[in-house]
Amino acid sequence: MSQDNTQVKLAARPKGEPKSSDFEITTGPVPAPGDGEVIVEVEYISLDPAMRGWMNEGKSYIKPVELGDVMRALAAGRVVQSNDPAFAEGDYVTGQLGVQQYAVARGKDLSKVDTSLAPLTTYLHVLGMTGMTAYFGINEVGELKEGENVLISGAAGAVGSIVGQIAKIKGCKVVGIAGGKEKCDYLINELGFDDAVDYRSEDVYKGLKRACPEGVDVFFDNVGGDILNAALTRLRMHARVVICGAISQYNNTEAPKGPSNYMSLLVNRAKMQGMVVFDYADRYGEAAKEMAGWMQAGKLKHKEHVVEGIDRFPEHLMMLFRGENFGKLVLKV
Amino acid sequence: MSQDNTQVKLAARPKGEPKSSDFEITTGPVPAPGDGEVIVEVEYISLDPAMRGWMNEGKSYIKPVELGDVMRALAAGRVVQSNDPAFAEGDYVTGQLGVQQYAVARGKDLSKVDTSLAPLTTYLHVLGMTGMTAYFGINEVGELKEGENVLISGAAGAVGSIVGQIAKIKGCKVVGIAGGKEKCDYLINELGFDDAVDYRSEDVYKGLKRACPEGVDVFFDNVGGDILNAALTRLRMHARVVICGAISQYNNTEAPKGPSNYMSLLVNRAKMQGMVVFDYADRYGEAAKEMAGWMQAGKLKHKEHVVEGIDRFPEHLMMLFRGENFGKLVLKV
Repeated sequence: MSQDNTQVKLAARPKGEPKSSDFEITTGPVPAPGDGEVIVEVEYISLDPAMRGWMNEGKSYIKPVELGDVMRALAAGRVVQSNDPAFAEGDYVTGQLGVQQYAVARGKDLSKVDTSLAPLTTYLHVLGMTGMTAYFGINEVGELKEGENVLISGAAGAVGSIVGQIAKIKGCKVVGIAGGKEKCDYLINELGFDDAVDYRSEDVYKGLKRACPEGVDVFFDNVGGDILNAALTRLRMHARVVICGAISQYNNTEAPKGPSNYMSLLVNRAKMQGMVVFDYADRYGEAAKEMAGWMQAGKLKHKEHVVEGIDRFPEHLMMLFRGENFGKLVLKV
Repeated sequence: MSQDNTQVKLAARPKGEPKSSDFEITTGPVPAPGDGEVIVEVEYISLDPAMRGWMNEGKSYIKPVELGDVMRALAAGRVVQSNDPAFAEGDYVTGQLGVQQYAVARGKDLSKVDTSLAPLTTYLHVLGMTGMTAYFGINEVGELKEGENVLISGAAGAVGSIVGQIAKIKGCKVVGIAGGKEKCDYLINELGFDDAVDYRSEDVYKGLKRACPEGVDVFFDNVGGDILNAALTRLRMHARVVICGAISQYNNTEAPKGPSNYMSLLVNRAKMQGMVVFDYADRYGEAAKEMAGWMQAGKLKHKEHVVEGIDRFPEHLMMLFRGENFGKLVLKV
């Protein structure tokens, strides 16, 4: 290819908040694709809290990004050259394409998507990992049952807002925790949540007492820290706590704060269980079909927050940790 | 009855460690039993970590003991007077008889036990709540499967020692955490544990690395605090953490320390679940039958630590929190 490729590579393991100097931006030629490989022109990069964890050394649910490697990212784009007979130029695909303009990828690691059914970004969102995380997290790990009381932290975020809408579809009472009046109003007025707690203007313990007087059957946690701790005080008997993330703790330089109220699990015979969406890969199709149906029926709304400038990747990413995004954060390349 | 009754009543809610002044010891007549009631001469009182929680105000899995009431306790004794046709004088029974010499109780709240099959104290131990807690905790909440790696804290304690032996019967690799060489030797040499970590002489993180190189499938926690936190670093995929107790935290005057490594639940898709033995009451018979069989076959050993002097109840109870008991602690009246 004659085109040059801009790539964002991990240059240092961040201590605390990632900063620009933790990344190196390089420009160079796009290598020729090998047998079974394609070149994808990346159009949208998904910015996710989990990316912060991928920058750390050490054992986790997925290998860390190596220093010097292109930063791992889920992304969507268009095939511009193909050595895989299953892909033609012009096909739209998603996959772990990384933070770069052009990705050379094996065809078998990519998923073809149909942009006539839904816009490309939807496949990074409701019909992508975000949606799958919400779907399997609340249904499988949360064991959601009709009419239950559901509480969600990070409720205006990409995953949280889908979790809440799925719970509403299932006839549950849904309360969201979010930062700021605008987000709380959005949850109630746009997404149909029953109530919201604004952790920026209200003591969360008191807010949860007010909004969840009967306690909660399922708490879906994206945030961790004090919010998890407060939510544990509201568990009902046999409650389920879904540990999807802990965005409040990802940039800690010290050990995260443990949930000191965990003995509520004993008192209420409750469980707290972690989830990683990849475990449900063989059932993504089933979930996407149901989610697409809900979207078409107008029951599943979504909001995107699009930012531009691949060279400003670290500052865009930090918006997630500062609660500055409103909707699913995607980086337009 | 002509006999006077010595009773230990809760006089104040303990702050931190219970002390003698938190209790009042009274002597007075035994009231006549009402219709359907019996008088039990209490012979053995079970001393359990859970009793500390019953002294606290506030919502828990069981009502707190009211100030001025006889301290709640599981106990075993002999019927000396009966107004319930189902009980005769001389029958041996167990139940929530309280810390006192004579208990007036409704017959329907008592269980008759057969002292020709097993000594009376056994019904406070392997065939009582302790054994039931171990049995349902490891089998139901721990979902124990043959050949798994099992780790137990408070392993030389009443519940822990039974949990470990059940796991050995099921062909598991079993490691116990206990305080002191004598207890660790007992676990390995007498109870057949595969290894033991002495938290008094060894860094628990390092000890667990050494004793559980493959990680653990089930962690049965009686202790909480740092030991729970260390154990979370050793979880295998789909591990189960059974929260049975948190003896290290019961006398805290501040909020307990939360397990800061709880994100290991996410990385390993693991669950942490609380249990309360009363939930399995309708299945005690089934469990007791299996446990009695193991006892008769010599596969389930037990050790008792008998103390005397009902008037020294608070100091006897404190032995549990200081790790001074070796075996199931019972107070002989």
